[in-house]
Amino acid sequence: MGAAARGAAAELAQTPTAAKAAGLRHAAAAIRANAETILAANALDMTAAAALSSALRDRLLLTPARVEAMAAGLEAIAGLRDPVGQRIDSWTTPNGLRFERVRVPLGVVGIIYESRPNVTADAGALCLMAGNACILRGGSEAARSNAAVHAALVAGIVAAGLPAAAVQLVASPDRALVGAMLVAHGLIDVIIPRGGKGLVARVQADARVPVLAHLDGINHVYVDAAADPVKARALVLDAKLRRTGVCGAAETLLIDRAYADPAPILTALLDAGCEVRVDAALLRLDPRLRAATAADWDTEYLDSVISVALVDGVGGATAHIARHGSHHTDAVVTEDATVAARFLAEVDSAIVLHNASTQFADGGEFGFGGEIGIATGRLHARGPVALEGLTTYKYLVHGSGQVRG
Amino acid sequence: MGAAARGAAAELAQTPTAAKAAGLRHAAAAIRANAETILAANALDMTAAAALSSALRDRLLLTPARVEAMAAGLEAIAGLRDPVGQRIDSWTTPNGLRFERVRVPLGVVGIIYESRPNVTADAGALCLMAGNACILRGGSEAARSNAAVHAALVAGIVAAGLPAAAVQLVASPDRALVGAMLVAHGLIDVIIPRGGKGLVARVQADARVPVLAHLDGINHVYVDAAADPVKARALVLDAKLRRTGVCGAAETLLIDRAYADPAPILTALLDAGCEVRVDAALLRLDPRLRAATAADWDTEYLDSVISVALVDGVGGATAHIARHGSHHTDAVVTEDATVAARFLAEVDSAIVLHNASTQFADGGEFGFGGEIGIATGRLHARGPVALEGLTTYKYLVHGSGQVRG
Repeated sequence: MGAAARGAAAELAQTPTAAKAAGLRHAAAAIRANAETILAANALDMTAAAALSSALRDRLLLTPARVEAMAAGLEAIAGLRDPVGQRIDSWTTPNGLRFERVRVPLGVVGIIYESRPNVTADAGALCLMAGNACILRGGSEAARSNAAVHAALVAGIVAAGLPAAAVQLVASPDRALVGAMLVAHGLIDVIIPRGGKGLVARVQADARVPVLAHLDGINHVYVDAAADPVKARALVLDAKLRRTGVCGAAETLLIDRAYADPAPILTALLDAGCEVRVDAALLRLDPRLRAATAADWDTEYLDSVISVALVDGVGGATAHIARHGSHHTDAVVTEDATVAARFLAEVDSAIVLHNASTQFADGGEFGFGGEIGIATGRLHARGPVALEGLTTYKYLVHGSGQVRG
Repeated sequence: MGAAARGAAAELAQTPTAAKAAGLRHAAAAIRANAETILAANALDMTAAAALSSALRDRLLLTPARVEAMAAGLEAIAGLRDPVGQRIDSWTTPNGLRFERVRVPLGVVGIIYESRPNVTADAGALCLMAGNACILRGGSEAARSNAAVHAALVAGIVAAGLPAAAVQLVASPDRALVGAMLVAHGLIDVIIPRGGKGLVARVQADARVPVLAHLDGINHVYVDAAADPVKARALVLDAKLRRTGVCGAAETLLIDRAYADPAPILTALLDAGCEVRVDAALLRLDPRLRAATAADWDTEYLDSVISVALVDGVGGATAHIARHGSHHTDAVVTEDATVAARFLAEVDSAIVLHNASTQFADGGEFGFGGEIGIATGRLHARGPVALEGLTTYKYLVHGSGQVRG
């Protein structure tokens, strides 16, 4: 599969935008035409998954609306600006050499994911549009759904004259194949895990191929003394509770010791059904508050739970985040531009926000037309990874016979 | 050392350009002031290295001129444009959020190198100017020289008020420490090996930290049927022989079967003392030619030896390079713009040149003011890696109370 992917990648790297977009539009049509087959396959997966949690079953479930959303998603990706061939820089040196730095595809992308069958379509489409071949390995619980979605995708791609090996699916449930992908140096250029912390941790620990991923999203909202109380309350509620299971959800609220009145924020969280674990000094504000323990500052709840610490100004906030953060997404709420600038400069996270909710940590919200994941590593792409993050570059040097001499 | 580097990195990330430049200028002054100490330390290393090859001894040797070049190199790096804080992109989404993507330092860079004591100064200075802390591990043969250079560097850095841990040198010759660096996840953000193939291969095999490097430089010059014969001869001679030991040297010459007269190029190589190993069909052109074997196409000689194959046009050339190349640097010689464009598009190397010598594969020649190495991997930086390659980015999001809702 690696060798086939490598061959497809070489072909896709030279494929014009219109042909890639046509492949995705054909794939969308094939998904719509095969909706019943896909839903029937999903029904079998759902029956076999009866023992799983309702959250997992919801992720696995396909409905006619979700299948249509998958097809529409492919069409949306087909309409995105193609990064391949973009000129990033160009300059001429005194000897007359003209340099260009242009984007080229990464090559072969391995995606290892769980549950959601829509990843098969989304991830495959983003890789293809950026000129990459991909090898997909979904969870065994979604095997039938993924196979049906993949079959439609490939039918569309082939109908547009693109290589079938552009998007390959590992059909066997053998877990050793995941291990093989992680060490497929020379065949797979980068691995992107999509799923729970257990999956990401295993991939990060075992991969010898570069990985783009995030392990934790221990995201902070810092409410400064100079925060607008109305904005602060609204931002904290949204950052924590809009969706608690997403990686951009806030997990810790840091409140400036000089902030006038923390009570309305805490009360609003409690009233919304959130468990609130606070510093001892805050406990007296509401009998429903619980005492935080040391472990709370390092916990990603992904649930209706938040930890709340008092800190000494923006310096206290950035120190707390440096110690406990996960370099994902952190926000400051303040009307003081100097405080905001300091927070944005000092917090070493992929995404730092001023007076905006951490739940904007999403490629779609960034205007990228989707994302294949969010990366918190330091090399290559950081934050939401979309088409551009799925490319690399090369240097073109145009001469007229120059020797170095 | 890793923890100290992490602390220094946090400080350097917030250090303004002028302060970093001042640190490097102070370091240059300290190297000049301590030139005799550095030369004395080097003399001890040279005595101990009596049994090494003359090539290795030349790399190890410091002279007053080389020490001065080291100091001047630091001053040159101090004058480069600081990438930190550069805004790569900015845009506003319909909800009024303003996004910025700005360059920030990578963090902590580990450099593992051999022989040349000037790498201690060069690599340390490039890392510092890009706002990174670094941990340097030189070869044991250069231990005294490296320690003396490092002491001067740190004296200058500290005199400018920057943290001493900005540039740390692993003093112990214990090879296990290299292993520790390679797995120092969370303490070292990227490893850059500088040295022979054995060193790079070990680092690539054992590292669990991301690596920027190249293993081979099996670089090709393709002489097309439409090449200008005068340019072709000059470019091939320069690409192969200007310096044979550098990674940008050409190792294989591909000649279009339709090229009118290959003899002058081969004769010129032979006359210059180069061993020329050719396809059977070329052997008759000169009694000094030798027959190439299959292994020649995959060999990086780094010496006055070149392999020469006949290929069927540009398609034959790109197929040969896809099979035998190392994604480093490849050049086409042709007056046909269509052939040149096809070669530049299809050859999947970090650097592709048209009518220019492969020996331009060098950060200085690119106008980068130096380089910390050349990378042939696909993630993060490719080709010559200099200040910009030693940075990553983060997203700043400016709102006015936006919630995702």
